[in-house]
Amino acid sequence: MTFRTQILTLYPDMFPGPLGTSLAGRALEEGKWSLDTINPRDFATDRHRSVDDTPAGGGAGMVLRADVMASAVDHALAQQPDAPVLAMTPRGKPLKQGRVRELAAGPGVTIMCGRFEGFDERIFDARPIEEVSIGDYVLSGGEMGALVLLDACIRLLPGVMGAACSGDDESFETGLLEYPHYTRPQKWEGRIIPEVLRSGDHAKIDAWRQQRAAEDTRLRRPDLWERHRDVPDQSPSGAQEENDKEDRS
Amino acid sequence: MTFRTQILTLYPDMFPGPLGTSLAGRALEEGKWSLDTINPRDFATDRHRSVDDTPAGGGAGMVLRADVMASAVDHALAQQPDAPVLAMTPRGKPLKQGRVRELAAGPGVTIMCGRFEGFDERIFDARPIEEVSIGDYVLSGGEMGALVLLDACIRLLPGVMGAACSGDDESFETGLLEYPHYTRPQKWEGRIIPEVLRSGDHAKIDAWRQQRAAEDTRLRRPDLWERHRDVPDQSPSGAQEENDKEDRS
Repeated sequence: MTFRTQILTLYPDMFPGPLGTSLAGRALEEGKWSLDTINPRDFATDRHRSVDDTPAGGGAGMVLRADVMASAVDHALAQQPDAPVLAMTPRGKPLKQGRVRELAAGPGVTIMCGRFEGFDERIFDARPIEEVSIGDYVLSGGEMGALVLLDACIRLLPGVMGAACSGDDESFETGLLEYPHYTRPQKWEGRIIPEVLRSGDHAKIDAWRQQRAAEDTRLRRPDLWERHRDVPDQSPSGAQEENDKEDRS
Repeated sequence: MTFRTQILTLYPDMFPGPLGTSLAGRALEEGKWSLDTINPRDFATDRHRSVDDTPAGGGAGMVLRADVMASAVDHALAQQPDAPVLAMTPRGKPLKQGRVRELAAGPGVTIMCGRFEGFDERIFDARPIEEVSIGDYVLSGGEMGALVLLDACIRLLPGVMGAACSGDDESFETGLLEYPHYTRPQKWEGRIIPEVLRSGDHAKIDAWRQQRAAEDTRLRRPDLWERHRDVPDQSPSGAQEENDKEDRS
């Protein structure tokens, strides 16, 4: 099954961009996902093909018109009624791995890329749109956020990463950061790989990794650690389910 | 002054990618920022030009070798000793707008892009590297994170956005989400732009916007709201300084 993506953007040339190379690029060629760009400008109604106008109440910048964006969204919904519509905006809900997993398990996704000062707010009342933010920083537009969201989804599609790399241990999948990694050379600049990892004792190795994942999360990300501790079943799979539940709410 | 960026990546073709178009693309042409890619493979020492090896202690995937990555970092530091070295990794400190502002005010940035299972942990003990995460989700590699970080920095460089769009009101700049925007048409699908925005009374408009920014942050992002309330001086500029301070720590 193809994961179908539609991107509403004033900069269609940005896609697939970095997703045209490496794993995602191969998966695109193999039809594991598909990409269509929709330019809101094609839905403008004046002869200048305007998509934006000045902010009501004054202020710098331009705002994307609700009427033009709604026409573009309606077109996208007609093409693919079963895919959720996301808008990339700093006012959105922070993206988490649990939501990425849900999206990747679905039929695809339609993504609206904001530009300038953002969208006329009425679009969010008038259409079923999920506002999503990839982080607490400001980007020049939603395109970069859309690329991030697609990359996170695509690597989870069946057959993209391969069995060798299921990703179950990755950061955030268990509600914790991932444990640190080491590889050859065994000694480098006087620094030696931790002895337990050279022991061949898999139970001890697993215990060390779990302990380091917990310790590093507590030190580096007290916010994640607090949430993890609130979860009744602290086994990796239990924590993951809890995480998913939270993201759905 | 040119904001000089160096990217350590196994996929140099991904750059400038989406940063070659729009505002960032023009700024690159104008020399407001520069881009050099460094391929760690050029620093491998065997005839297969290996950059990775299997994880010590077993497990799926491959780990980027500390020795090869260190040679690449040393090369980058020799080229530009005064630029901070960042590594994009989910184990890193979450990127915030305050840190973006600091980086954009500096001479440039060197960014290491992780791939596979990540870097041999010893590299972070042995070299002055800041581990950065763009969000709580897993990407196929650090390249997408590097593009996000660069985009966030570049739009802040002098002359890139233009005076019309200084960005002081943007989400996160005040510690709050930005207020909602509206534009023409005044009535759309029965929905009317809030009356205060049509009043022409700038004091009332400002008050409404501040109130909506606070209200939306409290409802959508209680985490940001709690932090904002803890700041003694709640004026926008005071909150911003406090934010920067926190990010520096």
